[in-house]
Amino acid sequence: MPVPVVPYSEVDVLVIGAGPAGLMCANALANARVNVRIIDQRAVKVTAGQADGISPRTIEVFQSYGIAERLLRESVQVHQAAFYNPSSSGGIELTSRAPDVTAPSARYPFEVALHQGAIESIFLDSMKELGVEVERSTIPTSIEISEDENELADPASHPVRVALKRTSVFEGEPEEEIVHAKFVVGTDGAHSWVRKQFDISMDGEQSEFIWGVLDMVPDTDFPDIRNKSLVHSNHGSALLVPREKDRVRVYMQLEDKDIINPTTGRVDKERMGPNELLEVARRSLHPYKLIPTTGILWWTLYIIGQRVASRFAIKNRVLIAGDACHTHSPKAGQGMNASMNDAHNLAWKIALVVRGWAEPSLLSTYESERRKYALDLIAFDKEFSTLFSGKPLTEENSDGVEPEHFMKTFQKFGGFTSGIGVHYSPSIAVLDKNQNLASGLVIGERFPPYQFIRAADAWPFEIQDLLPSDFRFKLVVFTGDFSDRLQQARVKSMVADMQKPECFLKRYATGKNSASPRFDIITISKGRKEGFDFLQFPTLLRSHWSKLYIDDVDVTRSFGGEGYSHYGVGPEGALVVVRPDGYVGAIAPLDRVEELDAYFGSFMKVSA
Amino acid sequence: MPVPVVPYSEVDVLVIGAGPAGLMCANALANARVNVRIIDQRAVKVTAGQADGISPRTIEVFQSYGIAERLLRESVQVHQAAFYNPSSSGGIELTSRAPDVTAPSARYPFEVALHQGAIESIFLDSMKELGVEVERSTIPTSIEISEDENELADPASHPVRVALKRTSVFEGEPEEEIVHAKFVVGTDGAHSWVRKQFDISMDGEQSEFIWGVLDMVPDTDFPDIRNKSLVHSNHGSALLVPREKDRVRVYMQLEDKDIINPTTGRVDKERMGPNELLEVARRSLHPYKLIPTTGILWWTLYIIGQRVASRFAIKNRVLIAGDACHTHSPKAGQGMNASMNDAHNLAWKIALVVRGWAEPSLLSTYESERRKYALDLIAFDKEFSTLFSGKPLTEENSDGVEPEHFMKTFQKFGGFTSGIGVHYSPSIAVLDKNQNLASGLVIGERFPPYQFIRAADAWPFEIQDLLPSDFRFKLVVFTGDFSDRLQQARVKSMVADMQKPECFLKRYATGKNSASPRFDIITISKGRKEGFDFLQFPTLLRSHWSKLYIDDVDVTRSFGGEGYSHYGVGPEGALVVVRPDGYVGAIAPLDRVEELDAYFGSFMKVSA
Repeated sequence: MPVPVVPYSEVDVLVIGAGPAGLMCANALANARVNVRIIDQRAVKVTAGQADGISPRTIEVFQSYGIAERLLRESVQVHQAAFYNPSSSGGIELTSRAPDVTAPSARYPFEVALHQGAIESIFLDSMKELGVEVERSTIPTSIEISEDENELADPASHPVRVALKRTSVFEGEPEEEIVHAKFVVGTDGAHSWVRKQFDISMDGEQSEFIWGVLDMVPDTDFPDIRNKSLVHSNHGSALLVPREKDRVRVYMQLEDKDIINPTTGRVDKERMGPNELLEVARRSLHPYKLIPTTGILWWTLYIIGQRVASRFAIKNRVLIAGDACHTHSPKAGQGMNASMNDAHNLAWKIALVVRGWAEPSLLSTYESERRKYALDLIAFDKEFSTLFSGKPLTEENSDGVEPEHFMKTFQKFGGFTSGIGVHYSPSIAVLDKNQNLASGLVIGERFPPYQFIRAADAWPFEIQDLLPSDFRFKLVVFTGDFSDRLQQARVKSMVADMQKPECFLKRYATGKNSASPRFDIITISKGRKEGFDFLQFPTLLRSHWSKLYIDDVDVTRSFGGEGYSHYGVGPEGALVVVRPDGYVGAIAPLDRVEELDAYFGSFMKVSA
Repeated sequence: MPVPVVPYSEVDVLVIGAGPAGLMCANALANARVNVRIIDQRAVKVTAGQADGISPRTIEVFQSYGIAERLLRESVQVHQAAFYNPSSSGGIELTSRAPDVTAPSARYPFEVALHQGAIESIFLDSMKELGVEVERSTIPTSIEISEDENELADPASHPVRVALKRTSVFEGEPEEEIVHAKFVVGTDGAHSWVRKQFDISMDGEQSEFIWGVLDMVPDTDFPDIRNKSLVHSNHGSALLVPREKDRVRVYMQLEDKDIINPTTGRVDKERMGPNELLEVARRSLHPYKLIPTTGILWWTLYIIGQRVASRFAIKNRVLIAGDACHTHSPKAGQGMNASMNDAHNLAWKIALVVRGWAEPSLLSTYESERRKYALDLIAFDKEFSTLFSGKPLTEENSDGVEPEHFMKTFQKFGGFTSGIGVHYSPSIAVLDKNQNLASGLVIGERFPPYQFIRAADAWPFEIQDLLPSDFRFKLVVFTGDFSDRLQQARVKSMVADMQKPECFLKRYATGKNSASPRFDIITISKGRKEGFDFLQFPTLLRSHWSKLYIDDVDVTRSFGGEGYSHYGVGPEGALVVVRPDGYVGAIAPLDRVEELDAYFGSFMKVSA
């Protein structure tokens, strides 16, 4: 009998773990036409419960991959937050309502709720169209990175060796496989196997928060049952979030006495089941009734320490993302958003390195950008938790939390919880220079939405839709008023500069076509659609008629026309580099194209 | 050998002809869960060319069936119209640009262009999900309506007998079938077989217009190649419409000398092929160049007399729709829109009669509403044609068409060409009374769009999306300010009236549920989301929490909050009946619910 040969294969990227972070990563890489495989130990995808809040920025990210339409069709939108506090008669009462999202530039000024299974299906269907499916019932059993410096330095090498084992195979199929990968992404959750293989420590808060969660279709007289409600009562704090199919999710921060066994001093799950959780919720919501009409549909206890991995990458060949490198309390609804945005930040960098377009050093910005964010998130959470869990201000409790202060804090952090205000610090991928040329396009932040009118046909477009996550850098050229003779001369001089061999557009051009697929030029001119002639523009600025836009109102005069001032761009114009993930990478004046050469020169590679 | 038995079957509705009108009809009936079959003589669906402009109102209609999203994703939008006229140097020059659509209340203030095959696919896929597919290669060979008055009067009878013959069958399958239908809809085109069987004459204009049409991807320096361009030149008039994939469609009205054989005096297609048409287009566009980069992709000649059938129905059992009952010149882009809107007007009426909810007399409003529209369309077209085909005003031609007058005429008819201004005259389905209670909701016109805020969760909704074409009448209850004590008393008294047995809500209730599926109540209150308590409203006005809305701005304060004044509804409120096709059917004050009883009493039937 022959000894079975363990199959051996190569892949550019192996993603381990098919939760939201892993699926976002694999889908993004598949979109970029990178050779990617994704495995998961589970035999079937998750179908119920678990994290489900999607922040405004994450909706924008979905849109940049062309999958927001379905997300919005299937999900529930949360527009308004309600704040409840103790009333003089013993129970709680409505103190105020406010927009749930307070980031003024949010394209989608709301959160959406959709169960994790449905979110995963959106990715799975998108990937399937691109020929990538999750290999299930598959676990990694060993992982090694080559020690050979030459191999590690060669972007074409496959220095990561992963042994896989299938826990369910058809007869005759091999159970084991050895995969040699250029890159491995560990998105295998809070108990990450990948992280443990490399002894990466989780640093942070040792104290743990205990949360109880219930899903139900309630019969209730609570007037804000379809808003996000932040309830501060003398009988515990609760957070209510509306969900699809008339369901409501109730989060309750539990007190130690409810859940800790006094004898052992440890958490005792036996002490808290769905009925006990329902009682906690009812005490908190008194005098409002809360009756599950179809029983408790799902419940869980979260026991979460807020921690961040000490490293997010090993030799820039194995990278971890999502819960594998940070865990958060569920209250701010940030865990899944942070995880998916890790993957969004990482995927384009891997894609560019795999394609040979970027130096591997670009990958270092993944840890620097996302680890800082994870730490900021925990700092925010601590401040918010203190207020949320603190006793409310009452006559008996004069140092309690003042309702107005709590609401203001909720709003102050709007930019943060919405994901809109996420700011990446200067690095090779973020050149902090010339901010004054476009004060509304913050370097290191995402390019904010605005509607411009396509010059050729007056069709209004949201500029974010012109900046898809397609792994090209976008060069947004604000030309100013091209009908002004002096400004026209500046634009023509800029175009001449861009056609020089040393310009990044030429230097990093791929193949023989002058329009390099690494870059996409979008032109935004001042002008009025009634008299504009797009054919007057240099062809570099309109590689296709659809690439030229004007800052004008739409034909019904209901929106648009203020884009230059909204972005703080003056009549002299500006060149704005948008990274493939939608973040502003660099800004330069029209007459200093070479400053962009310096930006791209710090990480980009000339094609072989 | 046994004589083959011709199979015999019954169906509620048989649709003959699967063009846009037939597909709209069958899809609408399938949506209404009516037992429907649709046949077509063609073996495959149309794949190229033909009519392709969709007007703003038709987009709204698509949206009401849940199929606009795909239409908008696949189509090209036309926002701007450009007007060209003779220049002093011999060729043409841009005179002005204007919005392509000038109907201020249009929800979609643009037209879309999509080839007819793609439009048909949208219907086919929608119908397929509802279990209905087109039976192809099937022709009707005879049709008869029973002469038996009792049978004709019985809505449950199947008095129309149609013999079908399949031109392509698998071996052993029968080639013939006898179908007994309650209703037959003939949507079998300009040469309608159904129309001919009943000797229905086509009345109207005998003079015929001849149009040439070309599709191409042009290389051109014509600045408005992506706008709709109306070109008036001394060398013929042309209409350019942008299409998908960089294509442009050029319509040219041809002169008799180009196409009429002087010897025979008849149209001679041999005289005009694609190359000749291209020359006509080039003469018209001079001095701009027009070079087909990938050849002429499609071309045709239209020779169309504008005619309207003398009758649209026979005994209200056989009805014809679309090109079968009216033909139009293509210039105003109305033919396909008129056809689909015929079917939209007809389908709900058939559905209600088939269900036993409405008297057959309701069907008479189909001919009265749609025939008048077809006649109006031709009157409009005559006026517009005269201007479009007329020589432009020049020094030599001092009684020519003045450019400004032409553009103003184009705009004046905006309500008409957009479909938004279509107005149905008083009938049993349109009760012209109490218009003053809601001056912005014109009785007999479609319910115009506006965004309201859902009371329970501050989620903004477009009210048209709350009025889907689902074959229920919608009762939109404008309560006024419910927090005003006097107004609250009026609302409560109205609710009491609505719960009386003689009220239409009770009288025409179906089955045992008090919430009759024939009616859907949507409540719009004045109020502010920050303090509103939706639970205070009578349950009749909120059968589900999602049924109650407030006229308030959205959380970002960017829209909404002016709905009452936009609709001309005063503080005393109003009751507005919206027909299943989205048209305002009746209006009543809150304290005269009985006026709606009279409206419904004129055509509705009590359930057996």
